[in-house]
Amino acid sequence: MEQRAFNFSAGPAGLPLPVLEKIQRDLLVYPGAGASVMEISHRSKTFAAIHEQAKSNIKQLLNLPDNYHVLFAQGGATMQFTMIGMNFLQGKSADYIDCGAWAKKAIEEAKKFGTARVCWTGKAENYKRMPKTPDLDLDANAAFVHMTSNETIQGIEFFDEPETGSVPLIADASSDFLSRPIDISKYALLYAGAQKNVGPSGVAVAIIRDDMLERVPAGLPSLLDYRLLQENDSLYNTPPCFAIYVVALTTQWLLDEMGGLAGIEAHNRKKAAILYDAIDQSGGFYVGHAERDSRSLMNVTFVLANKDLEGEFIAQAKAAGLDELKGHRSVGGCRASIYNAMPLAGCEALAQFMRDFQQKHG
Amino acid sequence: MEQRAFNFSAGPAGLPLPVLEKIQRDLLVYPGAGASVMEISHRSKTFAAIHEQAKSNIKQLLNLPDNYHVLFAQGGATMQFTMIGMNFLQGKSADYIDCGAWAKKAIEEAKKFGTARVCWTGKAENYKRMPKTPDLDLDANAAFVHMTSNETIQGIEFFDEPETGSVPLIADASSDFLSRPIDISKYALLYAGAQKNVGPSGVAVAIIRDDMLERVPAGLPSLLDYRLLQENDSLYNTPPCFAIYVVALTTQWLLDEMGGLAGIEAHNRKKAAILYDAIDQSGGFYVGHAERDSRSLMNVTFVLANKDLEGEFIAQAKAAGLDELKGHRSVGGCRASIYNAMPLAGCEALAQFMRDFQQKHG
Repeated sequence: MEQRAFNFSAGPAGLPLPVLEKIQRDLLVYPGAGASVMEISHRSKTFAAIHEQAKSNIKQLLNLPDNYHVLFAQGGATMQFTMIGMNFLQGKSADYIDCGAWAKKAIEEAKKFGTARVCWTGKAENYKRMPKTPDLDLDANAAFVHMTSNETIQGIEFFDEPETGSVPLIADASSDFLSRPIDISKYALLYAGAQKNVGPSGVAVAIIRDDMLERVPAGLPSLLDYRLLQENDSLYNTPPCFAIYVVALTTQWLLDEMGGLAGIEAHNRKKAAILYDAIDQSGGFYVGHAERDSRSLMNVTFVLANKDLEGEFIAQAKAAGLDELKGHRSVGGCRASIYNAMPLAGCEALAQFMRDFQQKHG
Repeated sequence: MEQRAFNFSAGPAGLPLPVLEKIQRDLLVYPGAGASVMEISHRSKTFAAIHEQAKSNIKQLLNLPDNYHVLFAQGGATMQFTMIGMNFLQGKSADYIDCGAWAKKAIEEAKKFGTARVCWTGKAENYKRMPKTPDLDLDANAAFVHMTSNETIQGIEFFDEPETGSVPLIADASSDFLSRPIDISKYALLYAGAQKNVGPSGVAVAIIRDDMLERVPAGLPSLLDYRLLQENDSLYNTPPCFAIYVVALTTQWLLDEMGGLAGIEAHNRKKAAILYDAIDQSGGFYVGHAERDSRSLMNVTFVLANKDLEGEFIAQAKAAGLDELKGHRSVGGCRASIYNAMPLAGCEALAQFMRDFQQKHG
């Protein structure tokens, strides 16, 4: 077998090796099913148990109160942008925090369904930080406030939820979902495409509070109706069974191997510190994009002070088994995505490579 | 390893064993990628090649003219019901052929977007057959005609496309997609959830003709806009990469191992004949649901004349390694789904079991 590289892809991103090994082992016959997990009915007892495992693992990891529901939907975070507009905007006005590329996409989609009022923008500062609550120009009558908890492309992360009073807070947590403990009771709806921290692409997780379901208008397109999804336990039609299976395994790995969210946070902080230290100790050879207190634990974004070296840096890293370090095509530079599944050894290898590269070219 | 059963599941359904073996072999490292296919960027060269393979295999299998596009979408056929309403109904009237459970679902969803006029219904006959063109009460001004090429639950299949003149024909081909040659030029849009004949659940294939894209109104929700999907080659956001990969492998298997659509049709006719013969030669012990010329090659539906024996029949079959023979919960009875991946040996084993069971209980 070819060797596995350290994979710094921003998403779809690396999965824990023990999870992949389990998938591989059971690929032809899932225990007790007589068939691959891809081949069994979504109404079978076997799949029901997998689905239940995925839900209950997420509930356990987040200490989810009983008035929250775990839903699985298709279409990634982008379809959630649409669903939020259809279900909760309905011609009204909501406050959107414009903190980067994904926030902008959420705003553009929301405009199709009502007023997406920008209550703060980091645009003039080139999206280097997340706002604090006092920075926000909040409308007390907003239908909701929308935030993006981690901006994958810019590499900035919210470490304190904004205080929105009685206005429901909705978060796109696609790129830091289940990467550290959060106080879920502050959120009315929190959603995430799975393909960064909890599974492959093709499924999104939506965690929704009971009272939000009461706001859903009648007559929505079936699969875009949060209430219908909840009433049918995400089984209104055939769900993306295999992706949900991988979510079940990955969340089980978080619980059994990584010490839950407290454990994975410690792990993730250690990993991120290794890379931010490499940047900070480079004397300006590497320059981080984010302000310190908004530095993402998931996506470490930086440039080389000498831009001409960037192509060589990325190519040599790849040759050394450090893949996908190129920044997003919209912003350039470098980006190391170090989600839950990235081992410490990957960050250590990259930091060492950064020091070696600097020594040769500094 | 546990043994694989013969899996007669209606969907998600069996996949070809050589496809599963290839997935298993490359699960930890896809050749040249240094990572699992689940872990790589949808913008990577590796995934681009997989995506291209899936598209070009489908084009080749269907002899697709240049004015057709192959799109991949999420949400299964159910989301296609919605998209058809949003993109092409828009308050107008379209003709729907009500030929069974899935047609009814398409009609219910369409009503949210305009008039779903039923141009024929098989309801009074308990959905035992597909209509012929003269049976249809077609509206020459309809936005389109919608048909369901195979009704999974009732086990009936369209072998002649209805003649709709200049009115675009749209088909839900979820359960007989790529199971036999069709004249694609008769269709303006043909779509299928993958989980019966071409992959796992979590991806739908939509084959759309150029002129339909011109009808798409502006301002639709992004992922529900056929034109946007086509302009972005199904990569507007992260697609269900793994599911598309399985589609690429399964269509490659059809081309390389099964002789394309002509080859698989011969295979499928042989398989279906084995089971329908077992029914017809049982002297009324087994009773088929469908009229002969509408008998599905994909889903063989039947009841036992003595209803009291059905539970025992299904349980004993399962014990003999013949899984998932229970009819859909909405209609009861028995159903053997024998999509492309079901081997001849599976149908032979079931026919033999049927004869043995009858001998014991007849």
